[in-house]
Amino acid sequence: MRNVAIAGVGLIGGSFALALRKAGFTGRITGIGSPQTIQRALELGVIEAAPDPAQALAEADTVYLAYPISRILGMLEGLGARIKPGALVTDAGSTKSAIMAKAASERLRFLGGHPMAGKELRGVGAADADLFRGRTYFLTPTQPEEEFVEWIRRIGGHPVLINAEEHDRLVAVTSHLPQMLSTALASMASELPVDRAVQGSGPGMLDMTRLAGSAWEIWADILATNAQPIDAAITAYIERLRDIQCRLKDTSLQAEFEKAGDVSRRLRHPAR
Amino acid sequence: MRNVAIAGVGLIGGSFALALRKAGFTGRITGIGSPQTIQRALELGVIEAAPDPAQALAEADTVYLAYPISRILGMLEGLGARIKPGALVTDAGSTKSAIMAKAASERLRFLGGHPMAGKELRGVGAADADLFRGRTYFLTPTQPEEEFVEWIRRIGGHPVLINAEEHDRLVAVTSHLPQMLSTALASMASELPVDRAVQGSGPGMLDMTRLAGSAWEIWADILATNAQPIDAAITAYIERLRDIQCRLKDTSLQAEFEKAGDVSRRLRHPAR
Repeated sequence: MRNVAIAGVGLIGGSFALALRKAGFTGRITGIGSPQTIQRALELGVIEAAPDPAQALAEADTVYLAYPISRILGMLEGLGARIKPGALVTDAGSTKSAIMAKAASERLRFLGGHPMAGKELRGVGAADADLFRGRTYFLTPTQPEEEFVEWIRRIGGHPVLINAEEHDRLVAVTSHLPQMLSTALASMASELPVDRAVQGSGPGMLDMTRLAGSAWEIWADILATNAQPIDAAITAYIERLRDIQCRLKDTSLQAEFEKAGDVSRRLRHPAR
Repeated sequence: MRNVAIAGVGLIGGSFALALRKAGFTGRITGIGSPQTIQRALELGVIEAAPDPAQALAEADTVYLAYPISRILGMLEGLGARIKPGALVTDAGSTKSAIMAKAASERLRFLGGHPMAGKELRGVGAADADLFRGRTYFLTPTQPEEEFVEWIRRIGGHPVLINAEEHDRLVAVTSHLPQMLSTALASMASELPVDRAVQGSGPGMLDMTRLAGSAWEIWADILATNAQPIDAAITAYIERLRDIQCRLKDTSLQAEFEKAGDVSRRLRHPAR
């Protein structure tokens, strides 16, 4: 890996560039994006150059797609003809099956990626060399890509190799379901008189409605490419909630609370 | 208000004592509780004296019950014969209908209370003079109790007068439902392989499962005294979640996301 083209120099793409430099990468890092983003990325020293996109793609040995999912799918179309033969293409989209299928149909050397990292802030101004540190970095390889995997380790990420379908079912439960639950709760709270909703909301309600503030554009893409696993996760969740509802005054609920409490603590203090 | 007996000198009772002092209360503050708690409360200067409980109750003009709900209900039994005639009894229990009914049957001068304040930590060691600052303090009066309400203002709380049944229906949605949703989500995550659950859980999943770590003892009391409104809130929530589930790939979901996002932001930045 000597020449990395980052398509989409926002929070994730910009952080990946900064993280590579911090980890000792001495090759070339170019950026592709809107003129404003590229100018800001150059000013901040996140990328070192921004040749025109055709040239950046033609010269790179590694192309890192850090766009929203729908834009990644669009960019994969015909990408093979625009890049150096044999160059590695990887991405940071948060669902993997649709992207892997598209990449396969384009006959690319493709490594699906999904860093479990983020921030409230977006854009290259929020890019952070330590964004991936201590975080899972899911990878859905079609062939061994040891060099790239090693760079993920060097930037502090925990690479986890996984099948794309298993990945999508997993994040349907651990990421997409929580979003839907938060949106449904905030939507329900919208029926309360505003002053009452504010008065009645303590730290717990604030935790549970924070995700509801997420941007629709990101979720439209996730829902479009992972609807079936999300649908299945919601169905399983409703079943579990109904079971709890039937036992509100039943002492058996104590065991359910304790099991859930154990998971809550284990997620916070994992034994990596 | 010149002599306050605090029954249950834990996080809430201890904080109320510290907050009164900080707000300039110059009367007497006594404590009732287990020997260990009382000793610690005296050492920390949270209370100034701990006569035997019969004497503390007989001398107080204000009795502040900061126990768990079931214990408050137990203590109300026959309390009228143990306190000074006409003394005000108030509490900090998080459901109000059952407590108000019990207090009425005991013919007490009773002011129901529910401060929307808390911390991860429990016990008198975590008591904090600023715990109530900026927080809603629900009050369910049966007669005007302006002097006590004024003390709530002086300690920085926002007193909100409300009917007990309305209070219980409100917190069923804004506090008890979020707890049940978090418990159900963590319970569902318990079916995943542990390493996968950890790998797949980003900040959103951690937010949504934090409440699941709450202590069962507190929730057993809340469920026992507010089951019907919680049951109704869960039913309404499932209906809303099903509606979202039916529209996962429908553009109409954007409006739902935006409405929920507005509520999420309004709860965070309320115009008091």
